Amino acid sequence: MNAEIIAVGSELLLGQIVNTNARFLSQQLAELGVDVYFHTVVGDNPERLKAAIDIAEKRSEIIIFTGGLGPTKDDLTKETIARHIGTDLAHDETALESIEDYFKRTNRVMTENNRKQALVLKGSEVLPNDFGMAPGMVMKTGGHIYMLLPGPPKEMEPMFSRYGRQALASAAGSTEQIVSRVLRFFGIGEAALETEIIDLIDAQSNPTIAPLAGDGEVTLRLTAKHVDTAAAEAMLDEVESKIRGRVGQYIYGYGDASLLEELTKTLKAGQLTITAAESLTGGLFQQEITSISGASSVFKGGVVCYANEIKRDVVGVRHETLDQHGAVSEECARELAENTARMFGTDVGISFTGVAGPDELEGKPVGTVYIGIAAAGKPTVVEKLTLAGGRAANRVRAVKFGCYFLLKLLKAEPQDTV
Amino acid sequence: MNAEIIAVGSELLLGQIVNTNARFLSQQLAELGVDVYFHTVVGDNPERLKAAIDIAEKRSEIIIFTGGLGPTKDDLTKETIARHIGTDLAHDETALESIEDYFKRTNRVMTENNRKQALVLKGSEVLPNDFGMAPGMVMKTGGHIYMLLPGPPKEMEPMFSRYGRQALASAAGSTEQIVSRVLRFFGIGEAALETEIIDLIDAQSNPTIAPLAGDGEVTLRLTAKHVDTAAAEAMLDEVESKIRGRVGQYIYGYGDASLLEELTKTLKAGQLTITAAESLTGGLFQQEITSISGASSVFKGGVVCYANEIKRDVVGVRHETLDQHGAVSEECARELAENTARMFGTDVGISFTGVAGPDELEGKPVGTVYIGIAAAGKPTVVEKLTLAGGRAANRVRAVKFGCYFLLKLLKAEPQDTV
Repeated sequence: MNAEIIAVGSELLLGQIVNTNARFLSQQLAELGVDVYFHTVVGDNPERLKAAIDIAEKRSEIIIFTGGLGPTKDDLTKETIARHIGTDLAHDETALESIEDYFKRTNRVMTENNRKQALVLKGSEVLPNDFGMAPGMVMKTGGHIYMLLPGPPKEMEPMFSRYGRQALASAAGSTEQIVSRVLRFFGIGEAALETEIIDLIDAQSNPTIAPLAGDGEVTLRLTAKHVDTAAAEAMLDEVESKIRGRVGQYIYGYGDASLLEELTKTLKAGQLTITAAESLTGGLFQQEITSISGASSVFKGGVVCYANEIKRDVVGVRHETLDQHGAVSEECARELAENTARMFGTDVGISFTGVAGPDELEGKPVGTVYIGIAAAGKPTVVEKLTLAGGRAANRVRAVKFGCYFLLKLLKAEPQDTV
Repeated sequence: MNAEIIAVGSELLLGQIVNTNARFLSQQLAELGVDVYFHTVVGDNPERLKAAIDIAEKRSEIIIFTGGLGPTKDDLTKETIARHIGTDLAHDETALESIEDYFKRTNRVMTENNRKQALVLKGSEVLPNDFGMAPGMVMKTGGHIYMLLPGPPKEMEPMFSRYGRQALASAAGSTEQIVSRVLRFFGIGEAALETEIIDLIDAQSNPTIAPLAGDGEVTLRLTAKHVDTAAAEAMLDEVESKIRGRVGQYIYGYGDASLLEELTKTLKAGQLTITAAESLTGGLFQQEITSISGASSVFKGGVVCYANEIKRDVVGVRHETLDQHGAVSEECARELAENTARMFGTDVGISFTGVAGPDELEGKPVGTVYIGIAAAGKPTVVEKLTLAGGRAANRVRAVKFGCYFLLKLLKAEPQDTV
């Protein structure tokens, strides 16, 4: 089947926001095997919206609308579609209760126009909004499937993932359950990962295997369809085990948890504290770990040691180390990690030193990175990287590699001591 | 006039990238007084692209294409449009030279298909590509203006700003020069700024005054049109002076420079060094200042002091201060700033302490922030803020406020000593 995504909202046409919804839905539809041929953005104008629907109906079987479901007079997606397909709008009781409940919980007064948000196309399947008020809906009529979703991504994305995917498949005539699982990889690029498992990707149509890259991390989403959910899960187990057989060493987790979240969780579970000495990364590791709510139980503080005199005078890296090996060296990374762990009294110290660019440093090329990891009761490890990105990208990647190396070290512990 | 933006590229329909080009162009067109009624995204498919052009011609006077100008077989925007409007493609000599030059500079071998990038619609105005190879073009024919721009934002945005805006205005029949100036504000919200100057915005059609908010900073873009560039500049001077009369105290700079870049420039000009003690912001200030290339002359290092014991044991905040006033206090911010400047041997020390949330701390509500600034030869200043955003937003805003307070202090110097 093929689909078209119509975003409704003048704020998009004024350039006030970016249409990230089209991206999200396109990814999701690609995984479901639905071809997306067009995205359209149209303003809060009923005539132009109607014209866009006319065009979409001629070229697409599934038409997904985002936006225009809110309480204000500008929000007219439902009204326009209802008129267009000749259906009435009716209050959905569940949605209405959920809206009333939302106002109660947030101690706000519910105004009359908020009731409008509970209006749905008569005969449509209603999709609950777990993070807002306006429900979504799916309706099949006249040879087309119409899906209406709210505009705010934080409402739309979970609504589609939790209810929309399944409702779309059902509307398209499927009696199967769709079950997905996300595997998270690090230390292998998207292209290399694809090469390793391309025969699995090509051979599989159920479950499907969809790679997705972003920010140096790669994920695979496995999606199985079966009338029985348990059977779908078993299909996922089987394909996951095949994938693990090929590239299991690069898998660090499941679902939405980033490398840093996985690391924080692992440190917390081991009741370990961590500090950092950051030269190359200028505070990025610490900024990211403190942006995780509840990180204070594992992270107490650390140091940014950009200049050599700070490495020496504040962190206590030896004169001779800097003179003989330079700041971008295994020796310096080692001392930074060990000294900072001592200075801040933590179980683990991690250090990042390297050449951020644009110019080379100490005769070492841009992208040279040393990451030191001093963990109590273990010999200090220093990993060397040669990164190829720009200044900002290399900093981000260095932090991710640091998390990855440390995570491997922490997770390898039981086997090591056997 | 009205316009439609057509993005060409299957990677958009697969959800691999977001259509930020449509946002950028919509903002720019809004400033030029052009109404954008539709955005369309279509894949690298000549039939569907042709169909999208047919539709666009019926409803839009200006049609702007992004993407599909590259060297590969997939790139067929030019070819499809040429066939559609009945024009030939011809090599543009300047573009060809510029492509050959690009390969020479980057020491790469130019393959034959790269010559394809120098093909332009015969009779079109060619727009130079200062950051890539494929030139853009503007052509007026059959009652429509067609503009073709490359897909990568880092090529497209400067091409439009430097050449496209003016070419579009000329194609639309204007003999005027378009001159813009961007004023940067901090410490005033977009809504408050608009309220202060709404009469100026409403009264002015040339120059236009366009507010734009992002990341807690607000900018005003002033755009004047006149056949004579000097006269347009004079018109901008006049409206800028009116705006300065109302809200001049919030203006910190011009153009693209962020608050932090402006601060780094100011520190560099005064040959001043800076360090930071970050609790609330967890390293964000240091991470941002070190992401500015060349920051090493003003920033040597600093400390992240998330936990109270680090504030006390590493940064030397007094026991009594933490006991009597807590970590979120004027007194603690003062000691953090002063002690860190001493510890790192810098002219300026800045500190950030506060309640990031989600829970209150020491009986102080989420969003309470103290920023300490210890500058050599001046009494230490502590500013208190009460921020209303979430955890991440409050950290970003705290860093910006810190830069703003320090910038004001540094720039106020001459007057203070009079």
